[in-house]
Parts: sequence; structure tokens; C-alpha cells
Amino acid sequence: MSTDLILHNIGKYIALDTEEKEYFVSLLQEKSVKRKEFLLEDGHICKYSAFTVSGVLRGYTIDNNGFEHVLSFAPEGWWMADMYSLISQKPGTLNIEAIEKTELLLLSKANQEILFGKVPKFERFFRIITENSLVSYQQRLMDNLSLTAEDRYNNFCKRYPTLINSLPKKDIATYIGVTPEFLSRMQSKMLKRK
Amino acid sequence: MSTDLILHNIGKYIALDTEEKEYFVSLLQEKSVKRKEFLLEDGHICKYSAFTVSGVLRGYTIDNNGFEHVLSFAPEGWWMADMYSLISQKPGTLNIEAIEKTELLLLSKANQEILFGKVPKFERFFRIITENSLVSYQQRLMDNLSLTAEDRYNNFCKRYPTLINSLPKKDIATYIGVTPEFLSRMQSKMLKRK
Repeated sequence: MSTDLILHNIGKYIALDTEEKEYFVSLLQEKSVKRKEFLLEDGHICKYSAFTVSGVLRGYTIDNNGFEHVLSFAPEGWWMADMYSLISQKPGTLNIEAIEKTELLLLSKANQEILFGKVPKFERFFRIITENSLVSYQQRLMDNLSLTAEDRYNNFCKRYPTLINSLPKKDIATYIGVTPEFLSRMQSKMLKRK
Repeated sequence: MSTDLILHNIGKYIALDTEEKEYFVSLLQEKSVKRKEFLLEDGHICKYSAFTVSGVLRGYTIDNNGFEHVLSFAPEGWWMADMYSLISQKPGTLNIEAIEKTELLLLSKANQEILFGKVPKFERFFRIITENSLVSYQQRLMDNLSLTAEDRYNNFCKRYPTLINSLPKKDIATYIGVTPEFLSRMQSKMLKRK
């Protein structure tokens, strides 16, 4: 599996020499997940951060009434984990499923700690991508509290421009917190206005 | 101003020797903020991470209809910043205000970068506290999408146990996304049930 994308992704934030790159790559595991196959199910402990090389993952929880709520998507070049479970090593609440055939590179929590010990600048890389992720969640939370469904939809389109035409409508709907029927009616209205 | 609390807070995650502690403290600025005084107003660039030594800060946005939405509180021992603005150094949307007289230690973005260069293990400290913060926001987002107002209120009580009796009711209401009137009715019902 090509490691060009993950090394390019890291190279945006920290400079690695050839030896450091090779060492980092030696800590990764390759994983292929079929369409609708689970990488992680709720109630289990998350042992890996997953980086999407191709395809797309969907992370979601199921509430007491059986409704799904999408926390995040991980298209090509994005990371995904149940952060609560990964940090605490307690059972999590996130289901991580492949929406289509997905190729992943996995970094185990154990290997991540070894990596931090050997190449401390990876602390910087993970600090920066965690900060970026935090900003996104803060923004999404404020959007959910203060914006209309239409504005939330527009923000979704900005955040995941490559996904808007490829994702099942029901997943986009649960991400922005509306029913699929409401989303369809809204999209029709928006199209008519253009 | 005492630096015991901030050093204790950091000591939970990384070990510092006396020289490193002194160096870190030398980078901090003391700041006192009166009740209802702003530390940051929306439209400005956030230049500091603030650590609360005593008192409590409130971070909130104002939507297009003039409604306030509370993103977070920072009681004693917590950090607060407009993360989007701090990272991008672009004008932010967060207002940060003191709910009561508040004593702060400020770490400027410039000094934080100098600190990372001189004592790289601070990358680890900030990575870990950012991860913890990310987990909280993910949890809160999922709560907002899937829980009833009563369950969101219960989670607020767990997250900020020291604040529940000292905060203005309207701030708790906007944090959990209900009106102050709805919160009062809910609290009365919950009390009757006990």
C-alpha cells in the first residue's frame, strides 16, 4: 500500500529525514475494509488510529431509541479513531464502518507511544492535527446551536467537498441533525432558488 | 500570583525539573479581569491561552439573531482560548468574559512557540490536554444530537460540578441549548421527583 499520502500529510507539519520516514512507516499496519464492514464496534476498546489511503469511513453512535448520529467521516487523507476509547483504553461508543471499500494504514496506540519516545517531533504533528480537529468540532457545535439546517448543510459542503455527491443521503442528514426527508425537501428548495 | 496550580496541572502529564519550571513561569503574564470584563471580543485576534488561577471565564458566540451560545466555561485550573483564532491568527468569533473577578496566567502564542523550541516536552503536554478537550467536544456534540435536555443537563453537572450552583441560570441554559425558562421548569420537575 502506498505511504506517499500519509508522509505528504505529515510533511505539511513536521520535517522528517529518510530514516525517520522509514521508521514511522515500519510502525504502520495495512488494512483493507470492505463496504459496510466494521473497523470498530461500540462497546469495544479502540486500539488504533486509522488513516484513510482510499475510500471513506463513517464514525457514528446509536442512541437509546436506535437512531444513528454521525460524528465524522474520514475520506482519503483523514484520520479516524474513537478518541475517548483510544485515550482511556476503555470501551467506546463509536461504530466505525467503511462506506465503500477502504484502504487504511493503522497506527496502534502502543506503537504511537514508542514513536513519541524515539521521534519526539511526532508529538508536534499529533498536537497540531488534534488542535485542527478541536476547532472543527467547536465550529460544528456552535453551528448546531445557532445555525439553520440550511446553513449547517452549506458548512458540511465546505468541510467535505469531495463527499457531498458520493455519500448516502441518510448519512449527510444524520451528520447535520435532520431527517433524510427534511434534507431532500431542503435540497429541492435550494436548487429551485439557484 | 501563585503558579502552584498551573505547575501542578502540567505535572500530571509531564515531569519538569526546577529550571524548566522557572523557565516556563518566566514566559507567563499575570492578568486580573473584573466581573463582566472581556478578555477577548469577537472580531479580534486571540493572542493568548489563558489559565484560570481563580474565578471563572465564559466563552460564547452571538448568532445573527442576537442570541448568545456558550461554547465553554473555564473555572479554576482550566485553559481557555479562541482556538480557531489562536491557531490561524485571524479574527475569531468568540467572546471571552469573566463571570466573576478572575485571576489569570496568560501564555502568548509567540511564547508558546519559543517554549516548544526550548522544552519540546511541552508539545506532549499540549497534545494531551487538546486530546482531552477534543473528547469532551465530541461527547457534547453527540449529546446535543441524541440526548434529551434533561440528560444534557445531567452531563453538564458531571462536567462542571463546581459551577452548577454558582453560574447564572441563563449561562447554563445556553450551554445546554435551552431557554432559561425551560431550564427552570425542568429543574423544578427534577427536584419534585427526588
